[in-house]
Amino acid sequence: MNSFELSKTAAKRLAGKAVLTPLLRSDLLDAELGGRLFIKAECLQRTGSFKFRGAFNKLTSLDAATRNAGVVAFSSGNHGQAVALAARLYDTNATIIMPKDAPAIKIENTRRYGAKIVLYDRVSEDRESIAAGICSETGASLVPPFNDREIMAGQGTMALELLEQIGAAGERLDAVLAGSSGGGLVGGIAAVCAEAAPHVRVHSVEPEGFDDLKRSLELGARVRNSRISGSICDALLSAIPGIIPFEILKAHASPGFVVSDDEVRHVMATAFRYFRLVIEPGGAAALAAVLSGKCPIEGRTVVVVASGGNVDPSLFKDVLNTMH
Amino acid sequence: MNSFELSKTAAKRLAGKAVLTPLLRSDLLDAELGGRLFIKAECLQRTGSFKFRGAFNKLTSLDAATRNAGVVAFSSGNHGQAVALAARLYDTNATIIMPKDAPAIKIENTRRYGAKIVLYDRVSEDRESIAAGICSETGASLVPPFNDREIMAGQGTMALELLEQIGAAGERLDAVLAGSSGGGLVGGIAAVCAEAAPHVRVHSVEPEGFDDLKRSLELGARVRNSRISGSICDALLSAIPGIIPFEILKAHASPGFVVSDDEVRHVMATAFRYFRLVIEPGGAAALAAVLSGKCPIEGRTVVVVASGGNVDPSLFKDVLNTMH
Repeated sequence: MNSFELSKTAAKRLAGKAVLTPLLRSDLLDAELGGRLFIKAECLQRTGSFKFRGAFNKLTSLDAATRNAGVVAFSSGNHGQAVALAARLYDTNATIIMPKDAPAIKIENTRRYGAKIVLYDRVSEDRESIAAGICSETGASLVPPFNDREIMAGQGTMALELLEQIGAAGERLDAVLAGSSGGGLVGGIAAVCAEAAPHVRVHSVEPEGFDDLKRSLELGARVRNSRISGSICDALLSAIPGIIPFEILKAHASPGFVVSDDEVRHVMATAFRYFRLVIEPGGAAALAAVLSGKCPIEGRTVVVVASGGNVDPSLFKDVLNTMH
Repeated sequence: MNSFELSKTAAKRLAGKAVLTPLLRSDLLDAELGGRLFIKAECLQRTGSFKFRGAFNKLTSLDAATRNAGVVAFSSGNHGQAVALAARLYDTNATIIMPKDAPAIKIENTRRYGAKIVLYDRVSEDRESIAAGICSETGASLVPPFNDREIMAGQGTMALELLEQIGAAGERLDAVLAGSSGGGLVGGIAAVCAEAAPHVRVHSVEPEGFDDLKRSLELGARVRNSRISGSICDALLSAIPGIIPFEILKAHASPGFVVSDDEVRHVMATAFRYFRLVIEPGGAAALAAVLSGKCPIEGRTVVVVASGGNVDPSLFKDVLNTMH
């Protein structure tokens, strides 16, 4: 099966399990922007991010004996919560390897979904080798965050939904923007749009200093970020695009955008004000590319994915302080 | 037509105009509560509250000549925004009479939807006579906030939606809770449930000191609040239940609940944490009745309506400060 067909299969598996998240718009903001801006509110997804789609689809794709031996994932927090809940729904064990500096809300939630947590230091330790060690010791399977066809297909189910929702709203879609860490989300969207809506432009959005995908797309080859921390967009800090999503993106993605932490903070306040949504920094990146004017939407119909909403209250208070 | 049939007509009018708001749940919170708690997220409705349903339905029910002469409404803010947008969609003028102490975000939004704003003092001035004066001067029609069959039928469309959504989720609904000001929302819900799901208990929720509906239901006759201000639930401060909703509620509602401002603040933080939703104080009252333990949900399936999300950032910051 190609990626589009894998996404259609994933959509059947996720029916009744994942939330069919709403596509929201603001009359006031549209009047200001002169275009039609829709938010696909994945911050309302189970576990608070789109990651549940890929994780549940991946666990479903495993044979029962493999799944029953347990799963392992490394994650800044959203993939970890998603794998933890998917494992609980399948009544199997999950071990999640998380950086010590992950948002407290993400660590606490992952634990409460029933997973065993292993914290590591992002500078001195390598999460992939910690995960490999646990897998070989326990016989558990690794659930990768993005470089996996079933994970990417799960994320792509969101694109199937939003194309249907846009059609029901009587709109013709011009572009979709989504934040990118390893490219699993935007790759899944690109794979679906390439087949089902090839006229739609699919753009990745990354934080300043972590624009590995944007630069990789320009070069036609995967390049790495020089930094591993230093943006409030904790969910978007992967070092390099995944091989599998990059193959799709190289063929089907439009140029990427880059946004600053200040632009992201401002947009989190805008989402509070106009959409009544709590969006985490990484989840606000796509909206920031539009509201900063980098992706103009005048006369166009554009969907931005609000990919997650797990944000510590202290950071959200700082964001509200930026409002006049 | 009876109220149920009016709601079905309203649902047809609202299709493609109102947001089909999602029914959300939290795996973590459900595990804690031992029940199935769903939030009907009307804070994601157009204009940020359920009020758009009633306002748009009412304007649709007017004949064109009447509607073109303009509309007038008095409102603490959510009904005002809803009437302002509905008027704009019908290309007619709206004048909204709002208390000077309404939340700044509600006054500003109402103006930006294109309405003329008249501010009044809640202690020394009477909003109904101001509205009557404008109507007789200009020939405009009053769009009442709740004591109107078309308004109540519009609000009732939310109940049609949530019954369908609960059915699609494979659940059998036990109870619905919604905040009450004049009773338009909870009356609309009760009218629909009485016909379509008579086993469902419908409870109103009011702030302490403003429990006119609860006491009226106990007495079987409408009684008035002694206070006109003094709760953070600015949307729930009407003096007395509307005659039309009370007739329905007297026959079909279960006993009402009362919540404190502190319980409401706590629940706004919970909604941020577990649902990634921005809920205003009045919109959080129904959830507060559950999370305070006043309406136990162990072993039950309960929907609470998050009726609005228009809250000033300064108040929301105070709420986040209550989180540990």
